[in-house]
Amino acid sequence: MPAVTTPQPINLPLATALRRWAFVLAPGLVLYFAPVGPFTDPQRHLLAIFAATIVALVVRPVEMGVSVFLATVLLILTGTLSAETALAAFGNTTVWLIFAAFLFARAIHTTKLGARIAYFFISWFGRTSLTLGYSVAISDLVLAPVVPSDTARGGGIIAPIVRSLAKALDSEPGPTANRIGAYLTLVGFHCTYTASAMFLTGMAANPLIARLAKTTAGVDMTWGRWALAASLPGLCSFALIPWLLHELSPPDLRETEHARAHARDKLRGLGPMSRGERVLVVIMLVVLGAWVTAPLHGLGNTTVALAGVSLVLLCRVVTWDELLGDKTAWDALIWFAPLLMMAEQLQQQGVIGLISGQVFSHLHGWPWAVALGALVIAYLYAHYTFASMTAHVSALYPGFLGAALAVGVPAQLAVWPFAFFSNLNAGITHYGTGSAPVYFGAGYVRQGNWWAIGFIVSIANLGIWLGVGLPWWRLIGLW
Amino acid sequence: MPAVTTPQPINLPLATALRRWAFVLAPGLVLYFAPVGPFTDPQRHLLAIFAATIVALVVRPVEMGVSVFLATVLLILTGTLSAETALAAFGNTTVWLIFAAFLFARAIHTTKLGARIAYFFISWFGRTSLTLGYSVAISDLVLAPVVPSDTARGGGIIAPIVRSLAKALDSEPGPTANRIGAYLTLVGFHCTYTASAMFLTGMAANPLIARLAKTTAGVDMTWGRWALAASLPGLCSFALIPWLLHELSPPDLRETEHARAHARDKLRGLGPMSRGERVLVVIMLVVLGAWVTAPLHGLGNTTVALAGVSLVLLCRVVTWDELLGDKTAWDALIWFAPLLMMAEQLQQQGVIGLISGQVFSHLHGWPWAVALGALVIAYLYAHYTFASMTAHVSALYPGFLGAALAVGVPAQLAVWPFAFFSNLNAGITHYGTGSAPVYFGAGYVRQGNWWAIGFIVSIANLGIWLGVGLPWWRLIGLW
Repeated sequence: MPAVTTPQPINLPLATALRRWAFVLAPGLVLYFAPVGPFTDPQRHLLAIFAATIVALVVRPVEMGVSVFLATVLLILTGTLSAETALAAFGNTTVWLIFAAFLFARAIHTTKLGARIAYFFISWFGRTSLTLGYSVAISDLVLAPVVPSDTARGGGIIAPIVRSLAKALDSEPGPTANRIGAYLTLVGFHCTYTASAMFLTGMAANPLIARLAKTTAGVDMTWGRWALAASLPGLCSFALIPWLLHELSPPDLRETEHARAHARDKLRGLGPMSRGERVLVVIMLVVLGAWVTAPLHGLGNTTVALAGVSLVLLCRVVTWDELLGDKTAWDALIWFAPLLMMAEQLQQQGVIGLISGQVFSHLHGWPWAVALGALVIAYLYAHYTFASMTAHVSALYPGFLGAALAVGVPAQLAVWPFAFFSNLNAGITHYGTGSAPVYFGAGYVRQGNWWAIGFIVSIANLGIWLGVGLPWWRLIGLW
Repeated sequence: MPAVTTPQPINLPLATALRRWAFVLAPGLVLYFAPVGPFTDPQRHLLAIFAATIVALVVRPVEMGVSVFLATVLLILTGTLSAETALAAFGNTTVWLIFAAFLFARAIHTTKLGARIAYFFISWFGRTSLTLGYSVAISDLVLAPVVPSDTARGGGIIAPIVRSLAKALDSEPGPTANRIGAYLTLVGFHCTYTASAMFLTGMAANPLIARLAKTTAGVDMTWGRWALAASLPGLCSFALIPWLLHELSPPDLRETEHARAHARDKLRGLGPMSRGERVLVVIMLVVLGAWVTAPLHGLGNTTVALAGVSLVLLCRVVTWDELLGDKTAWDALIWFAPLLMMAEQLQQQGVIGLISGQVFSHLHGWPWAVALGALVIAYLYAHYTFASMTAHVSALYPGFLGAALAVGVPAQLAVWPFAFFSNLNAGITHYGTGSAPVYFGAGYVRQGNWWAIGFIVSIANLGIWLGVGLPWWRLIGLW
């Protein structure tokens, strides 16, 4: 199976590395040593190291994990935080929810259950180019609750299938790209991150959002509440986007019976469901059931997920050795915990409050609905400068949420639009999330088209998630 | 390089697995459900799950990591501990010290610095069988401060060298075993765990001991204090044991000029020191220096170790990808943190106090020096029932330390002998620590001899570490 799900090593020529480091360190050093802004020294030091970390996640002088590891050590060595405080996040339940979900993703990948599900939908109703698009979209949606990485799900499972489908239909990058490959690539990509938006466990940073919503606004985003809030606007997106892309990037091929035959071949190749797959389906259903029914039994998301991992290990769907060899999961553990820690410390030490107070002061006096709309739009398009949804969330979510609260948006409402657009923002570029370079790199869509279509889809999503979402969240009593 | 440093997968036939599980679960279930002993229900539930875990580490129905992972989940699911409490240990600084030290071990292994050091000593003064034994011992001692796993150091670096030396000297298991192979195997094995005893970072469970000494007796075992306390008795052991083994298992070959030639060949094969090795030597010296001088600058052991890891990563001695692929380090992270957590919870919830009060009640009235001797002897030979030094430490260290305190042993003294014999106990069997099966499995020494020699060495160690140690610790003002 593809290597795209493991983190890409970065090995730069010295000059490039130094240039990137200069980019990362210069603003951090200025902020660290120059008494700018309304901050106390400890606040400024924390902010400086955090800012340098976020820049490093974008500029990438070293791997993401190395950046946050170095940041953690710097925070301790400079005395900005104690070792106990800096490391405590590794014992945070949110971190272990992510870790557990990455192991589910691994199990779904190695048992080939993910590929089977996708080929099943394609063989079932992939008759025309449009329904084929919907088959790809639905596969992504079905996998999203338990595959919390859009890189693993989009890049690791769906993208390779999209590519093999396009090839089976004689569409290659170049002159035949528009036969079907460009369309399928776009559907796969845009539906991957839309599926991420629909579940608390659909994307690595979603539990981080839930945690920040709790600490910033005191709002509990349970698994069930997230799924309910996202359900109607999410389904509208899923209904609209494959059609919209079909209009924006119309495939020459309209009848795709051959794709169904290809999928049936692949299913035959997979053979009957293995013991591992069947056990995994049962475990995943139990885990999903337990997440949804949390209000009844009171077990936390992490407890449920860890119990699921126990079953996966006991039934040997994934062996301990495979778990230890899952670089993606360990990588997530190492980069996620320090980001969570820094975001929470910025909040606790009042830095976020000071910044949003200053940046968003001109919003005062606006009607809150207008201010919320403006904030969401700014939050969404700020993603042009980010190469990772997690970096975006840790840098901006608390500040924007704080600004919304400050202009009078009810807390129970304010947490949601920023949460969803933390996922939906990924569509505007070809580098905004882990799956984007994989889809884009297939070469079916030129960059100009990619960005133009991404922008149009983002407008559609704004319409759907604010236009349908706001009344929906009111209807279900969220605010 | 050898695979012995990665955790061995366990894949049992179903009947064997079930038998082992019955062994693990039966006592745990009785303890969980039957109101035995002076315990409250929560105390008994905690003890039951802990006891089952320790049995599982000995009986091994599944890998060590799986056992402690399942135990953690059970503690949460049964409501014995909250998820927050159960997972908090993953953010403990002691856990990350271990993790960092495992990465140093990885760096020393992959750069082949460890092999170079061993061959250097052998080529330098391996002229006779006895001095060859001392060369092996010294190599182990030099590596011990920064290779905190006797499996990695003994099994992964020294044992393969011992075996290649024996072969180069025409000694194979069987008729020629006593030519030199048996002797070198025994020296390697007994010096590996003796070296472990000499440094806080010489064995995975040593920082756990330091942590338990702090929580049980309020004593700070710093890196420098440990090294100082162990120095004199440790050096006596290192002086005596290779000679003692030379008497107990005399090698036929006395003149080993050929071994020096072999080592020189190997050194030539390694070529000049690589950039990675040179950088690593500097980093390791800086880290050691910072550990020793901690009272001057106040940086914690973990902070120093993590800064060292940062340098190792920044200088690309080990890449991020290699770090993510280091199964041993992740394994240690997963099994270490829950054991630490359970040992601390048993302590905090008063379980250890109740048990040592009952078991050791007949010691009351003994002079404390006699009681301490009896306790240390019991602690040492209890290791006949353990397959892991860490399991031994987590199960018994707090209880024995508590018992010693109860009979009046000064806290500043009591913490040390149990700490050292947590390492020295490994020599009495061929399964008592990770490096033992590797040395024993080479086949140079029959089991009867192995055990008899192990017993004699343990007596010698009792004499040295109590006879020399007690006055030494008094002299340097520890008590």
